[in-house]
Amino acid sequence: MASSDKLPTRAENFSEWYVELIQRAKLADYSDVKGCMVIRPNGYAIWENMQRVLDGMFKETGHVNAYFPLLIPEEYLEREKDHVEGFKPQLAVVGYAGGAPLEKGQRYVIRPTSETIINRSFAKWIQSYRDLPMLMNQWANVMRWEMRTRLFLRTTEFLWQEGHTCHETDEQAQEETLRMLDVYRTFAEDYMAMPVLCGQKTESEKFPGAVRTYSIEAMMQDKKALQAGTSHHLGQNFAKMFDTQFQGRDGKQHHAWQTSWGVSTRLIGALILTHSDDAGLVVPPKLADRQVVIIVVGKGDERTKAKEKAFALAADFKTAGLRVSVDDDESKNPGFKYAEYELQGICLRIELGPKDLEKGTCVMVRRDAERDPAGKPKKEFVPLDQAVAHAQSTLDAMQKSLLEKAKAFRAANTFEVNSYDEMKKRADDGFLLAHWNGDAKVEKQIKEETGLTTRNRPFDLKQEPGKCVVTGDPSPGRIVFSKAY
Amino acid sequence: MASSDKLPTRAENFSEWYVELIQRAKLADYSDVKGCMVIRPNGYAIWENMQRVLDGMFKETGHVNAYFPLLIPEEYLEREKDHVEGFKPQLAVVGYAGGAPLEKGQRYVIRPTSETIINRSFAKWIQSYRDLPMLMNQWANVMRWEMRTRLFLRTTEFLWQEGHTCHETDEQAQEETLRMLDVYRTFAEDYMAMPVLCGQKTESEKFPGAVRTYSIEAMMQDKKALQAGTSHHLGQNFAKMFDTQFQGRDGKQHHAWQTSWGVSTRLIGALILTHSDDAGLVVPPKLADRQVVIIVVGKGDERTKAKEKAFALAADFKTAGLRVSVDDDESKNPGFKYAEYELQGICLRIELGPKDLEKGTCVMVRRDAERDPAGKPKKEFVPLDQAVAHAQSTLDAMQKSLLEKAKAFRAANTFEVNSYDEMKKRADDGFLLAHWNGDAKVEKQIKEETGLTTRNRPFDLKQEPGKCVVTGDPSPGRIVFSKAY
Repeated sequence: MASSDKLPTRAENFSEWYVELIQRAKLADYSDVKGCMVIRPNGYAIWENMQRVLDGMFKETGHVNAYFPLLIPEEYLEREKDHVEGFKPQLAVVGYAGGAPLEKGQRYVIRPTSETIINRSFAKWIQSYRDLPMLMNQWANVMRWEMRTRLFLRTTEFLWQEGHTCHETDEQAQEETLRMLDVYRTFAEDYMAMPVLCGQKTESEKFPGAVRTYSIEAMMQDKKALQAGTSHHLGQNFAKMFDTQFQGRDGKQHHAWQTSWGVSTRLIGALILTHSDDAGLVVPPKLADRQVVIIVVGKGDERTKAKEKAFALAADFKTAGLRVSVDDDESKNPGFKYAEYELQGICLRIELGPKDLEKGTCVMVRRDAERDPAGKPKKEFVPLDQAVAHAQSTLDAMQKSLLEKAKAFRAANTFEVNSYDEMKKRADDGFLLAHWNGDAKVEKQIKEETGLTTRNRPFDLKQEPGKCVVTGDPSPGRIVFSKAY
Repeated sequence: MASSDKLPTRAENFSEWYVELIQRAKLADYSDVKGCMVIRPNGYAIWENMQRVLDGMFKETGHVNAYFPLLIPEEYLEREKDHVEGFKPQLAVVGYAGGAPLEKGQRYVIRPTSETIINRSFAKWIQSYRDLPMLMNQWANVMRWEMRTRLFLRTTEFLWQEGHTCHETDEQAQEETLRMLDVYRTFAEDYMAMPVLCGQKTESEKFPGAVRTYSIEAMMQDKKALQAGTSHHLGQNFAKMFDTQFQGRDGKQHHAWQTSWGVSTRLIGALILTHSDDAGLVVPPKLADRQVVIIVVGKGDERTKAKEKAFALAADFKTAGLRVSVDDDESKNPGFKYAEYELQGICLRIELGPKDLEKGTCVMVRRDAERDPAGKPKKEFVPLDQAVAHAQSTLDAMQKSLLEKAKAFRAANTFEVNSYDEMKKRADDGFLLAHWNGDAKVEKQIKEETGLTTRNRPFDLKQEPGKCVVTGDPSPGRIVFSKAY
């Protein structure tokens, strides 16, 4: 479709709005490879900013990066029973290489996750408790053959980080599991401006091979949940299968206690679904690649002066640490540009023309500004000598406001439900806090009959006994149900 | 082997020294996956520093990052005749996925390089000359099934960046090809402290599908050449096969002119082979992850004071932008530690104990310091209040000195040879500048008979006519022959 066509609105067709927005804002594109997308520069720049921040947080908590092979001997996966059952249907297998077929025992799978191959190395590297904790992370691509895919949210190949750690004791592994979950929470809230529920997943929703899985769960604008990151306590399951042992302080051999945790390019989908609007992408300033654009307007000689001032201003913005560009293209009209920059999610647009120069001001329009009934966003007239400081405080305010808005939206769409009827009726209304007896069969029944899945049991949701909405059995406390991506 | 064993020396067994050094310094390890290695944190940290610098240089020259699928439809590769011939023997093929075999026409190969799949996107994204130049880069893993592998230098999977660009004209593509070659030269010399010859490869050594290939070639300490990076002018070869066309300023459709260029984790191997010594790794300070270590020595109460001072000093180093750590471990003796830090290539070791504190000084030992006949490196006694400034100037001097030393080594091992006999005799002596008639058959004969290959025709090697050392035919000028990795 031509870019002059309007985006479908969220109200008209939420999922079409999402897919169209991604393509028009040049965040990603489809490829001919089943379920794989191309991440275009505008989308990849967001990922680079996410990586930079997360990588810093991992290093501050003592982790180091490494890189393990893309291919995993097929046989490795089969060592951990739950693990292979969970991943087998999704594997891509290399059966032919270097001009010849590989025999059954020599075949490789493309990593769907790396617990197995990393344990093979851990087992070699770890001798004694002095080698622990071993705290590693890997930035990598992984592949899970998916039947139904959606740009960023579910793709056959995706980019992610996977942390893998070894500890002396169960308690230390548990601490690490929760520490990294909290790193994810901090990142989601402080950078993505996306409030999340931190809590434990149910038995049936945990990672194949884990003892316990924790997640951060966010609410998208269509009130569906999105699992944005997970952190797993692996116990000694993989250590036992790969003989990852250490000599303890007691002189005896022990299997290491392990964790793994990951977030992926799915976060870009989460970011879009949390903040964007009918005009296009909205990116929290801390993660925006282009925070500010200065658009030169006007014609002739006077435009030249505005242009000079625009570049001088841009230099000041850069000095202040802001990511800024200048648009001096005369071939497109300002209205077209404004729409384009809104679509692409530039946080702050500054207009500068001869009339502004005369008055010693410029026009600032925040991407998430209030709009009048005609859809025009609110403008601010800012003295040029205060432009940098005002832009900074505007971006700070925008970062904060996006989080507040998302928090309010979640609060407005979170309900206690006290019967199965009520649950069915409100299935599309958001996060439903309900009592459940903890039985996986009942969980499955609810999923099949209503489309609702358990998200997690949030740490900050007070647990008070009650009765299961389906069976009337005792329940230890409410858990979050929701439709989900 | 135990880490107390000495490394083999370079003179004893150069290739064993290389492999042992990598494993003992924990840079990389073997894996069970044919020809694939594990890059351990010490090695990966060097790669991260390389990435950071190169990525900055790419962005400064106008390039943006994107990400394209790992898998390429088998059929894509077959479109460009030379390309498929060059890569076919090295392909890994996914023939089974999602629980079922893929049919012949649906099979995928793991990318050995991405010209084909990227062109598929370029063809969609480029409409007019206004979309040009399109300047992209991708950081990714690639796979080429190799028969004989060597840690970092030749592995089945490796990490790299691949730049891919589209231009309006042949000339602009040529400019880009040389611009990026020069970026590689700058990086090699200014950061890796590794002098390189920039020049054009011969027809038989060029990239499969390219019109012209340029390379940077470095000399390793065993006098063998290592191709450290390549930049290709692709002409319109791929554009024609994938219909990558644009409407030109003349209103007509034209195929884009393209380039591609890449460097890989092979650079880590090059770094090791250029600078390291019999004591272990040597890393140029600009790429070292740990530039300085402060080792606390002494015992009892007085050690406590030294320790406090060490941490205070480390804080000052950090403020000055240096990468520093403190070693206060009392369980190992200083001699053991010194050997370990030399092995691991920490640029500058600082010793700080009670006696030093009394004198208000510390001991500094540069990793590449001169050694006395007993092998003890030269020590410097530096007043504590000058420690930061002195460390900075020492690291600067070390960076410069490594480059000078490598330049001198290359100069001392580069010769003009004027007969085939002389060439054979000096085959192991380094870079041989020889006349050659330009015939690929003669080039092949030389390779088979002497093991020497053409490296490149350096831009700064004055071209004067002469006679081919093998045939006596006219030659336009000398070209570099060498044994190579």
